[in-house]
Amino acid sequence: MNSLSIGIVGATGSAGEVLPDCLQAAEVQVGQLHLYASPNSAGKVVETPFGAIEIEAFVADQVAETCDIVFLCVSGDFSRAHARTLSESCVVIDASSAFRMDESVPLVIPEINGEVLDGTQRIIANPNCTTAILAMGLYPIAQQYGLQRVMISTYQAVSGAGQKGLDALAGELRGAEVDSPFQHPIGGNLIPHIDRFLDSGYTNEEEKVARETRRIFASLFPEVGVSCTSVRIPIEKAHSESVIVETSRPVKDLDHVRDLWQSAPGVEVRDDSANNLYPMPLTSTGKLDIEVGRLRRNELFGDRGLEFFVSGDQLLRGTSWNAALIARRVAQFMT
Amino acid sequence: MNSLSIGIVGATGSAGEVLPDCLQAAEVQVGQLHLYASPNSAGKVVETPFGAIEIEAFVADQVAETCDIVFLCVSGDFSRAHARTLSESCVVIDASSAFRMDESVPLVIPEINGEVLDGTQRIIANPNCTTAILAMGLYPIAQQYGLQRVMISTYQAVSGAGQKGLDALAGELRGAEVDSPFQHPIGGNLIPHIDRFLDSGYTNEEEKVARETRRIFASLFPEVGVSCTSVRIPIEKAHSESVIVETSRPVKDLDHVRDLWQSAPGVEVRDDSANNLYPMPLTSTGKLDIEVGRLRRNELFGDRGLEFFVSGDQLLRGTSWNAALIARRVAQFMT
Repeated sequence: MNSLSIGIVGATGSAGEVLPDCLQAAEVQVGQLHLYASPNSAGKVVETPFGAIEIEAFVADQVAETCDIVFLCVSGDFSRAHARTLSESCVVIDASSAFRMDESVPLVIPEINGEVLDGTQRIIANPNCTTAILAMGLYPIAQQYGLQRVMISTYQAVSGAGQKGLDALAGELRGAEVDSPFQHPIGGNLIPHIDRFLDSGYTNEEEKVARETRRIFASLFPEVGVSCTSVRIPIEKAHSESVIVETSRPVKDLDHVRDLWQSAPGVEVRDDSANNLYPMPLTSTGKLDIEVGRLRRNELFGDRGLEFFVSGDQLLRGTSWNAALIARRVAQFMT
Repeated sequence: MNSLSIGIVGATGSAGEVLPDCLQAAEVQVGQLHLYASPNSAGKVVETPFGAIEIEAFVADQVAETCDIVFLCVSGDFSRAHARTLSESCVVIDASSAFRMDESVPLVIPEINGEVLDGTQRIIANPNCTTAILAMGLYPIAQQYGLQRVMISTYQAVSGAGQKGLDALAGELRGAEVDSPFQHPIGGNLIPHIDRFLDSGYTNEEEKVARETRRIFASLFPEVGVSCTSVRIPIEKAHSESVIVETSRPVKDLDHVRDLWQSAPGVEVRDDSANNLYPMPLTSTGKLDIEVGRLRRNELFGDRGLEFFVSGDQLLRGTSWNAALIARRVAQFMT
């Protein structure tokens, strides 16, 4: 076949909605695009770069019959219920957390470990959005200097909780009663609590970032330690992260790190304090690349300590753009 | 004398405005309260717990003649211009950064190192607001377990830039043209840039937090290292901080740390994840105590690693309440 039949399950959610544009930007050879959602949304027509498409109700058998590649932009529970069966006839790219720590499923950021994809995988996991943004900034440093410890504090947008999160913030800011997905008011506040709490005292979100980052870098740096504090802040879009890194080998020159970032695909260096240039949600929102900057030495770790700031669109690099790049790799083995 | 003549220079600024209430809350024996500001504000009448007071134009000689204790809630440059002369006749409590690293001037958080005040000091420096909030959470841990490394990422409110910061955020959120003190729009954005950049790549704000924290803890832990990333976020009031600590000695039991916090003056423990209780600007704003919580082990530092979150009102514990508590200590030697 020369072009593929591609399905997006959860096509009306935040990640599903932007996927058609990402597929076009990634130049995936889309023959037919099928959009699936709950029966409520079936029949609605959506404009996409591949034409106006009518949303279909998700019926597993029909999706399996129709699609070569299917994206699951759904809950972990939904993925667990359907991914294995779908993968018997389609390649499944799963944006949920269901398979990210499953050793039989690769967890892929194409620019970092895309070469693990060899056409044999039937399910491929997309990382947590915070992990993907972090890893893009970390990888050029890791390749050159190795990784010992990575410590992150996040600044996460309300749209991480979908349209409900956006509506809650907007409503609160204009003083309306809102149906919020958050545990507390978020307008004028921050909430150091994303996802459920675990026995360790960390949240599941924090552990996901730590576990997934370790998994992505494990083949290179099996001993790397990662810790994370996840905080929701009252901004609409893009996640930012304050990152401290202890490398394995001394870093002689910060300009060399900037050069490494500069040469890395998917990374935009914004690190010019004289011109007030640094990563910000205002500038990273809507971008396929992540922004990195505020690079400096962290003297607490001698000549192996670095500190930087990263900001990225959590729907694009964080989810849908990463998933589309996975599809592009997968498609090479199918067309 | 039994009660003191107290002056507040910069009485119409954010910190100066709340100082009269803080003086009352601290039970400082205020005989007369004098409020000083620029000639523009002179003649305005302000309601205080000590009655309605007419604002006077600042004239250094008159202030020196009139006051036993004078608070400088002004810029560093203003303090540098006037503090030494004023201190010949008054005790000066300086809220600016002018004298914080001057070895001849004590930098004081009363609950931590208030005992350095012995009635001989003529100028006393109040720490940076982020430092004060951090140090309150750190001190109970430091006393018991020692300090090796402290790594902070901040979430700072716009009111850290005064009324102009508040006006800018409010204006931007309603879509108005604003005269902003920030380098970029702050509504719906964050800015990893507070104060000017230094050659190290850190901002002056970040270096202040590191230097001042080291200075406050220096007598106990001369080797402690501190790093900070300072970020402005679009909330009105209270600063929060994500803190990683490496202690000198193993921490056996997190509940013991909570007990230490519980017994510490000025600290409110909000660390009950089952009930979604943790520090937040929403709850810490307007409080004299700082909030601490989200305590967990940071395994990257073995049994000496801790991680926690702190939130505090940067005008109260961060500035005016701390200054009022200094005045209470000083007053003991004067009345």
